[in-house]
Amino acid sequence: MRMFDIIAKKRDKEELTAEEIAFWIQGCLNGEVADYQTTALLMAIRINGFSERETIDLTKEMCCSGKTLDLSDIDGVKADKHSSGGVGDKTSLVAMPIVAAAGIKVAKLSGRGLGHTGGTIDKLESIPGFHADLDSQTFKRQVAETGIAISGQSEDLDPADKKLYALRDVTATVDSIPLIAASIMSKKLATGADVLALDVKYGSGALLHNIEDSRRLAKLMIRLAKAAGKKASAFLSSMEQPLGCHIGNALEVEEAVQVLKGDGPEDLRQLSLSIAGEIIWLAGVKSDREQAWRLAAELLNGGEALDKFKRLVQAQGGGDDWEQLATSRLILPYNAIDEGFIDKIDTAKVGYASLLLGAGRSTAEDAIDYGAGIVFCHKAGAYVHAGDAVAYLHCQDPRQAAEAAKLLNQAVSFSKTVPKAAPLIAEIISTEDATL
Amino acid sequence: MRMFDIIAKKRDKEELTAEEIAFWIQGCLNGEVADYQTTALLMAIRINGFSERETIDLTKEMCCSGKTLDLSDIDGVKADKHSSGGVGDKTSLVAMPIVAAAGIKVAKLSGRGLGHTGGTIDKLESIPGFHADLDSQTFKRQVAETGIAISGQSEDLDPADKKLYALRDVTATVDSIPLIAASIMSKKLATGADVLALDVKYGSGALLHNIEDSRRLAKLMIRLAKAAGKKASAFLSSMEQPLGCHIGNALEVEEAVQVLKGDGPEDLRQLSLSIAGEIIWLAGVKSDREQAWRLAAELLNGGEALDKFKRLVQAQGGGDDWEQLATSRLILPYNAIDEGFIDKIDTAKVGYASLLLGAGRSTAEDAIDYGAGIVFCHKAGAYVHAGDAVAYLHCQDPRQAAEAAKLLNQAVSFSKTVPKAAPLIAEIISTEDATL
Repeated sequence: MRMFDIIAKKRDKEELTAEEIAFWIQGCLNGEVADYQTTALLMAIRINGFSERETIDLTKEMCCSGKTLDLSDIDGVKADKHSSGGVGDKTSLVAMPIVAAAGIKVAKLSGRGLGHTGGTIDKLESIPGFHADLDSQTFKRQVAETGIAISGQSEDLDPADKKLYALRDVTATVDSIPLIAASIMSKKLATGADVLALDVKYGSGALLHNIEDSRRLAKLMIRLAKAAGKKASAFLSSMEQPLGCHIGNALEVEEAVQVLKGDGPEDLRQLSLSIAGEIIWLAGVKSDREQAWRLAAELLNGGEALDKFKRLVQAQGGGDDWEQLATSRLILPYNAIDEGFIDKIDTAKVGYASLLLGAGRSTAEDAIDYGAGIVFCHKAGAYVHAGDAVAYLHCQDPRQAAEAAKLLNQAVSFSKTVPKAAPLIAEIISTEDATL
Repeated sequence: MRMFDIIAKKRDKEELTAEEIAFWIQGCLNGEVADYQTTALLMAIRINGFSERETIDLTKEMCCSGKTLDLSDIDGVKADKHSSGGVGDKTSLVAMPIVAAAGIKVAKLSGRGLGHTGGTIDKLESIPGFHADLDSQTFKRQVAETGIAISGQSEDLDPADKKLYALRDVTATVDSIPLIAASIMSKKLATGADVLALDVKYGSGALLHNIEDSRRLAKLMIRLAKAAGKKASAFLSSMEQPLGCHIGNALEVEEAVQVLKGDGPEDLRQLSLSIAGEIIWLAGVKSDREQAWRLAAELLNGGEALDKFKRLVQAQGGGDDWEQLATSRLILPYNAIDEGFIDKIDTAKVGYASLLLGAGRSTAEDAIDYGAGIVFCHKAGAYVHAGDAVAYLHCQDPRQAAEAAKLLNQAVSFSKTVPKAAPLIAEIISTEDATL
């Protein structure tokens, strides 16, 4: 087998065999296939497409390219969740404690933030004492004993994805639905959970900019999950504006805890409950979907979810002072530059504004100011006058706030009429749908 | 400017600007653009296409990526020729001496053979004493004084082409008509000739397998020549079987000399005369095309072309023994395995058979046996019986002959009826055509 022939096949729109895909991925990792051959193939895939069968085979091959996590010796159903990357998306911090409170074992591996999107691991690390890098033995023990663990991914999990993603990132081949699906699902399948919730964002701030593409991605991932024998549901959730009001690591933990205490913004509460309810249903805790969703609300309202969250924090190093989150030195208002209904809040620009305030990373090596970020006091649909505070900027230096404000001036748009709100959840696609 | 955005534009079928193409080529050579980015762009070009305007800009940029040859201080019209790569194609050795005999300065830079096709430089080096690597000063002096020089290309001519070709070769992006045209024409424009003949092969043994693609390539190259202010004609010539009967370095020189002496096979004589006649016409030696072609025949028949060839050999180191060409130890018959009319002789397979006999290179570092090769005693259309000799194999070792014979068994096909011959010259496309 020669890499040349594999590239030529895809160039000519032919389907690659499982053996050819395996030859490519193994060669890409052991150096027998040059990076310049991999990128030529990636571009051919991006332009000419990749069938569902090819994507299943690629996902399998990537999944077994490194160490995988075997959770089979832990009793009960194991659940995991993935979000395709949002701004202000702290859903995991609410939904997964609810799931754990329902008796399902939560084994969640998460990433760190890069660019305009944040990462669950960074958020949790803003809690004093919290350790997010558990070795696999410690992780599994905590899942078994505490019922919930959230950890960063080990370096040797799915090395093929790290390699391919780095090459896609510099060759304009990220936005391929099959390649995105394989990237996400190969990691999730390598972590061994039985039940998966996938939060696929749609709208201007999403990875894919139109809802049809987001729907295609969601459906493909669900079919990959089904092919791997998993139960999974994907939510198409709105990223037309940030989720909740807080953006930034400690600020997002604070807002998640508000929701766990029965307070906080409605969109975050709703999406978290829906995801938790769906996992409870998929896990078979309740055979009726509606009852499962109702149980999620009960576990949130009754405080059981908050207890689980506290146990999670405690198990991973947080002490009695865990609610003493990091703060930034300055809190400066960001005022509206126009009058009218807030129409849109461009999440990518908000994410970059938060990065400029110190809450994010431009490169993987950058340090984070855990206390930095943005707190919106108005969201889309609110009527404001020019000069009204729309948000508060948390940072160390007024120059950061000035730079962030410039981006927010572009991010927040106004309308003279009441804007039409995009639905928070546009669709749910599940392995359990009869029509999948 | 970022390479990422340039790749993304071509991925999305947009046209690149001259500045973007310059950024790419310069970055590719100075290391600021990674090879894995170049190959992603090459694949996007291969699949999504490249406009004539883009190809003109790429050709210009490649042409000036290294040293160029300035022939303007040499009196008279300077001519060059390029062949898209054939088997048994020794046309340059006949046509260019005719051109020189017409008083046109022949300044020909040639390549070496690789894979199944031979190179003019290797052929000439089979002449005892012949030096093919002239420095540019020696080359120009010989063009001015002798009227003809044929030399290998210096390393610093068109380095962009060397780099891009090496990457295309391993990423299945060679067969892009715009990239082939830019590769050929950037080298030819860098060598400074005023008049160009392009021999574009068509048929099973050609670089491009169908005649429409060969025609597209020929037309594009002629338009690139016109854009650069050159006069040029392209011949679509048949590569449905080898040209002439001899394949292999010394064997091809021998056959070219036969033609220069008024003997030799008709197809080689015809194509050489046509190319020479066309150059004579383009150079303005005769204003009438027919008269120019007739002059070519007169210069061949009168022995002036042979004299020029001898002067070329002498100028580049050949002594009185120049006709004592290298020979191989063994000459073994290759016999027909079937009976009937010889229908086709697959030139790629014949080229590889010749390589196996020692006449070619698998890699650029391989040594050549100058005496090795194949001499056909029958060509397409001849009737043979099983066991008749079809060719003679020149080599050092009977095992080479056995391996080559296996390939020839596949290369030579038979028919019960008289096969239809492909026209030797299917079309001529010229910068002087009113309809170009």
